[in-house]
Amino acid sequence: MSSSDRIYTAGLVVIGDEILSGRTHDRNIAQVASWLQVQGIRLDEVRVVPDVLERIVEAVNALRARNDYLFTTGGIGPTHDDITVDAVANALGVPVVIHPEARAILERYYADKGGVNEGRLRMARTPEGGELIPNIRSGAPGIKVGNIFLMAGVPHICAGMLDALTGTLEGGAPLLSETVGGFIPESEVSVLLREVEASHENCQIGSYPFFREGKVGANFVVRSTDAGALRACVDALCEGLRELGFDFTPGGI
Amino acid sequence: MSSSDRIYTAGLVVIGDEILSGRTHDRNIAQVASWLQVQGIRLDEVRVVPDVLERIVEAVNALRARNDYLFTTGGIGPTHDDITVDAVANALGVPVVIHPEARAILERYYADKGGVNEGRLRMARTPEGGELIPNIRSGAPGIKVGNIFLMAGVPHICAGMLDALTGTLEGGAPLLSETVGGFIPESEVSVLLREVEASHENCQIGSYPFFREGKVGANFVVRSTDAGALRACVDALCEGLRELGFDFTPGGI
Repeated sequence: MSSSDRIYTAGLVVIGDEILSGRTHDRNIAQVASWLQVQGIRLDEVRVVPDVLERIVEAVNALRARNDYLFTTGGIGPTHDDITVDAVANALGVPVVIHPEARAILERYYADKGGVNEGRLRMARTPEGGELIPNIRSGAPGIKVGNIFLMAGVPHICAGMLDALTGTLEGGAPLLSETVGGFIPESEVSVLLREVEASHENCQIGSYPFFREGKVGANFVVRSTDAGALRACVDALCEGLRELGFDFTPGGI
Repeated sequence: MSSSDRIYTAGLVVIGDEILSGRTHDRNIAQVASWLQVQGIRLDEVRVVPDVLERIVEAVNALRARNDYLFTTGGIGPTHDDITVDAVANALGVPVVIHPEARAILERYYADKGGVNEGRLRMARTPEGGELIPNIRSGAPGIKVGNIFLMAGVPHICAGMLDALTGTLEGGAPLLSETVGGFIPESEVSVLLREVEASHENCQIGSYPFFREGKVGANFVVRSTDAGALRACVDALCEGLRELGFDFTPGGI
C-alpha cells in the first residue's frame, strides 16, 4: 500500500447528558463528519456518553487506540459539569495544569466583563502538554493534546474551532462520492445494487430510501477513494437502472 | 432500594455509514432519547458504527450487556448494505430465519406492487426467536428479540415503531426535570451551580449556554426522579440567582 492509499480515521466522543436526555438535538456529529471528509479523514465511530468521568475516560481510551485522531465535543465550559479536560488527562495519565496562554486569553476576553473568576479559570485548564485551538467566537480555546482534539459543544463555536484546524491534520485521499437517485423502490433494485458493488472493487454503494410526495424512492451513494473506479461503478449502476426501466437523476433527488 | 427506585437504562446503536459520512443528519438519537424518557428509561450511551458486520456485533454486545434494553436504528431494509439482522443474530449466537408472519405482511403489502422478490424477502428475516414490531407507515416490521429492538433508520418509520412499543417496556420512575434560564453568563454562576447541586442529593444540574440576540445566556436544567427534591433544588437555585442579581425565566428561555 503506498502512502497515498493509507486510510486515516477519527473517532468522536460526544459528551452530553443533554443529548442523551433528548433535550438537545446533536449537530456536531454531522459537522465534524463533513469537515473530516474534506480533510481526507474518515469518521469511524461516534460514542455519545453521559457527563460521568469514568464513562468519558473509557470512550476516549477505546476510540483513541483504534484511530489516528480522536475528537471530543462538549464539556469544556466553566461549570461543574464540564469535566472533559479532567477525563482526557485521566485517560492519558497526565495532570491537569493551568495553561498560561489560555489564562492570558481569558484575562483579555473578560477584562471588561468582570475579570477572571473561579469558573472562568476552569477554561484555562488543559491536560499537561496541551496546545490551544483558537476560538474566534468566544474566549475559551479548544485544546489539542497528542492526537486528541477537545472541541466546544456549542455548534457554532465548534465550527470556528474546526475552521482553525482546517489543513493542519495529515489525511489520506479524500473519499469521493457520487449520488444517483429517483422514485425507485429500493426493494426492486436490491439485486442490481449488490451485483454492481460486488463487481467494482474499492467501491461501496449505500442505499438511502425516502418517502416523499406520496411516493417511495431512494438515493444511491457510490463511494470510492479512486476517481476512475467511482466513475465506472456509477456508469454500471446507471446502465443497470436504465435496463430495469427506471428514471433517475444524477446527483440524487 | 425499592423496586420503584430501580433505574432502567437503554443503549442505542445507530447503524449508519450515511451518518458517519456527514451526508445525513441523524434524527433518531433525539427521538429515541425523548421517547425513552417518557417510558421511565434512561438512554445511557449511543454508538454510531459503520455498516460493517463485526462493528455492529461489537457495539450490540457491549451495550446490551450493560443496559436493560438495547435499540438499533438502521440497516433493516431490502438492500445488500442492510445487515443489522445478521449482526444481531451473530451477537446472540442464533441463526437468521424467515419469520412467517413478516413474510405474510410483506406479501400483502407488495401484492399490488409486483410481489415479494429477493430484496423484499430480506425484510422478513429475523434472528431466531424474534417477534415483530408493527410498522404502520410501510410494509417491513421492526424486530424485538430478547431485550433488543431493531428499528428502522428512516425517522418517521422509526417513530411509528416507537409508538407501537409505547407502554410495553418496564421502566422506572421517570426522570423529572425543570429548567430555569436567562441572559446569564454561566461563567458568573459556576460556583452557585456547583454548590446548589452538591447540597441537594439525587439532583443533577446541567448548564447549557447559548448566544442569542448578541448576548450570552444559559439554561440550567435540574433533574431528579424525586419531585420534592427537584422542587427544593430549583428553589435554591432561583434564590441564589436572585441574590447574585440575575433575572431569569422559569421554564428556560
